[in-house]
Amino acid sequence: MNPMELYEKVAAQGESVRLLKTKKASKEEIDAAVKELLALKLDYKTLTGEEYKLGSSPTNIAPVSTDGPAVVEDGGDYVDPWTVQTSNAKGVDYDKLIVRFGSSKIDQELIDRIERVIGQRAHQFLRRGIFFSHRDMNQILDAFETKKSFYLYTGRGPSSEAMHVGHLIPFIFTKWLQDVFDVPLIVQLTDDEKYLWKDLTPEQAYKYAVENAKDIIACGFDVNKTFIFSDLDYMGQSSGFYRNVVKIQKHVTFNQVKGIFGFGDSDCIGKISFPAIQAAPSFSTSFPQIFNGQKDIQCLIPCAIDQDPYFRMTRDVAPRIGYPKPALLHSTFFPALQGAQTKMSASDPNSSIFLTDTPKQIKTKINKHAFSGGKDTIEEHQKLGGNCEVDVSYMYLSFFLEDDEKLEKIKQDYSSGKLLTGELKKSLIETLQPLIATHQERRKQVTDEIVKQFMTPRKLAYDF
Amino acid sequence: MNPMELYEKVAAQGESVRLLKTKKASKEEIDAAVKELLALKLDYKTLTGEEYKLGSSPTNIAPVSTDGPAVVEDGGDYVDPWTVQTSNAKGVDYDKLIVRFGSSKIDQELIDRIERVIGQRAHQFLRRGIFFSHRDMNQILDAFETKKSFYLYTGRGPSSEAMHVGHLIPFIFTKWLQDVFDVPLIVQLTDDEKYLWKDLTPEQAYKYAVENAKDIIACGFDVNKTFIFSDLDYMGQSSGFYRNVVKIQKHVTFNQVKGIFGFGDSDCIGKISFPAIQAAPSFSTSFPQIFNGQKDIQCLIPCAIDQDPYFRMTRDVAPRIGYPKPALLHSTFFPALQGAQTKMSASDPNSSIFLTDTPKQIKTKINKHAFSGGKDTIEEHQKLGGNCEVDVSYMYLSFFLEDDEKLEKIKQDYSSGKLLTGELKKSLIETLQPLIATHQERRKQVTDEIVKQFMTPRKLAYDF
Repeated sequence: MNPMELYEKVAAQGESVRLLKTKKASKEEIDAAVKELLALKLDYKTLTGEEYKLGSSPTNIAPVSTDGPAVVEDGGDYVDPWTVQTSNAKGVDYDKLIVRFGSSKIDQELIDRIERVIGQRAHQFLRRGIFFSHRDMNQILDAFETKKSFYLYTGRGPSSEAMHVGHLIPFIFTKWLQDVFDVPLIVQLTDDEKYLWKDLTPEQAYKYAVENAKDIIACGFDVNKTFIFSDLDYMGQSSGFYRNVVKIQKHVTFNQVKGIFGFGDSDCIGKISFPAIQAAPSFSTSFPQIFNGQKDIQCLIPCAIDQDPYFRMTRDVAPRIGYPKPALLHSTFFPALQGAQTKMSASDPNSSIFLTDTPKQIKTKINKHAFSGGKDTIEEHQKLGGNCEVDVSYMYLSFFLEDDEKLEKIKQDYSSGKLLTGELKKSLIETLQPLIATHQERRKQVTDEIVKQFMTPRKLAYDF
Repeated sequence: MNPMELYEKVAAQGESVRLLKTKKASKEEIDAAVKELLALKLDYKTLTGEEYKLGSSPTNIAPVSTDGPAVVEDGGDYVDPWTVQTSNAKGVDYDKLIVRFGSSKIDQELIDRIERVIGQRAHQFLRRGIFFSHRDMNQILDAFETKKSFYLYTGRGPSSEAMHVGHLIPFIFTKWLQDVFDVPLIVQLTDDEKYLWKDLTPEQAYKYAVENAKDIIACGFDVNKTFIFSDLDYMGQSSGFYRNVVKIQKHVTFNQVKGIFGFGDSDCIGKISFPAIQAAPSFSTSFPQIFNGQKDIQCLIPCAIDQDPYFRMTRDVAPRIGYPKPALLHSTFFPALQGAQTKMSASDPNSSIFLTDTPKQIKTKINKHAFSGGKDTIEEHQKLGGNCEVDVSYMYLSFFLEDDEKLEKIKQDYSSGKLLTGELKKSLIETLQPLIATHQERRKQVTDEIVKQFMTPRKLAYDF
């Protein structure tokens, strides 16, 4: 029985009791009816967490997200915010994910509209389907066209100092979004989450947050337009953040987070309530210093698709607390060097290219570990061609090689067998070596003072 | 199976798999063993909320408080932080409560020690058993004797503007404790809790917090020694509070709060995680501005016994996060005018004497509504005597009439039948009218500016 049905059943039983009393029924009869009424009220309290009150219907009537189901487990694919697994070397089936999550595909029509609205070519991540799914992106474009403002929000869980190239994807794309739309950007570092989930002290998690902030800043964000914060710090610095966290927490039940995130009874209450903390930056009132208390500035969240469960929950809650639903742009997952079905791990330096790798390490890792779609012998490869769909070097190039023509030629030549695996890997090495070197150079320029500027709650270069 | 047993079972199964592989068992055999291992790991994760990791045993092994059981439901008594019910006109059976909660009785020996240590007579609330139970009070006295500092922490849930005389009990007693021990006092106003539990906006709950603060300040606290805060405000003003909240939240599972507070799956995640917010002020690092980051200043909490479940939980967590356990002093409940087995309610003005009542209202309410232990006729009363144990006017006098001899005489005369109900009520009226009038006079002096001073995070008149 759902809460509303039960509510009506309690009300009906209350009415029965009243009638029995009016017509002066026997004590046994009335007592039995009252007993039944009390049992129903108890059921009601158990189900809804509220006392039954005549005339005030249950507030917890929407235990299931309307945006789509929870965790996705489909064929060999499993996706939640902490685990992405697939048994397919081509990676997760993203079209299936869109259907399961109930999001929308970023199709050519949307890309065309984006290009029209911003008056320039869409980013390669859009053109190549790396950002492949969205929610309400057309609303954001409508707002932009009518000069209504919005803001960007993305984040990172600082689980270690080591970030790999894949971690840059949302930030590279967010930087581009900020450049073309010229809007404020909020970056949340969930050091509290990492403390709750990992074997870390709060101090370690906070330290990782600050170190990761340096890598994020090195992506080229403008300090006048960007606010980066650690949850552990900002919760104690903002008059708006905790108020929004509590508002969200009042409107999400344990049943809901159980359904969305798979939490269980033996999970700590910190994990259970954490989703509200990742949700809160989706609402502009969490940043009164930036948005001047305005509560209707919409938010656009670029993130990897595994973070979508947080924002499905957020979108469910938003209208119930009087805020606009955030819009989303979802990216695919960045594959491990060993192949899309294996897991990248900060504790296995060979599972990806890290932002601290030397040119030599990059070369060795790619040559030694990048899973190849090539054939076993040169003769066979030249005869049958390589398979770009499972070749990790090609996948990495599709993320980082900006030149569309070059990428297309590599694809054709490798598929036809004209380009050998060693040559393909050489292209990737030559693409990543300068990219990482430049990143390291920029990161060196990021002093503690600069980090502090980005992480200080303040007004940005926009008037609200 | 408890987490530790399951942990050992997973470890044993891992070892089996290793052995099978070493002795090159058949693929079927190994696969079956691996399957069993994975199932056990899943069970482990479900039970403990953690991934199984060889060599690191489960952290969530203590789902049950060691201090005592959860909610108390005994005979006609039911006690939890939101509900106090008894079917006995004398009130809750406090001796049973001590046994059930696992606290200690405040006996004559402890009262004697307190009087020795402070060099003056114990407060009437101690002498008359109104504060009747404690945890670790002797530690606090040890600390005081060796000139080690401690601090006081109490609080109030601001569910409405209307406070009644019963609400003053913990504050009157806390004021006395502060005077005799000369230590800092922290007062938490849980406006977030009231927002979560009641049909209130955060703004309303915050407003009630500020209004209640005025009544608390009117009890005579020294602004240089007292910090009063609203959760909604202070969470965003402190570098220490949220960090402690998260630490506590990491070390308490849903199973635990289910056991302690009776939360269910349809409760919102705000309620589920709230206990950590009431727990956090028990630790001095929640107030870096006062205690200068020192983490070993012990805390003494005077509160009504129904709040003990929060602090049993706090005392369980404290050693696991490196903090001292708070000590406690528990008071009995303040009865409603209609009798100890009925409920006081802010929405029923006749259920208690409110701090805003006029002398006339006080007189009328007591004469009309105070449950009497007297007999039906004067003749009968004079012959058989009244019953002080159920007489609410007498109970109220035992709280508020300072003169022990007078109180004793009233008891004897009423019990013998010499004193009539009207005369007993007159004594109470004459005790409460000036007390409330003085309170109202003092409250008028409490300006918004003074409230702001008390509620501003700052150093107090103590060096740490």
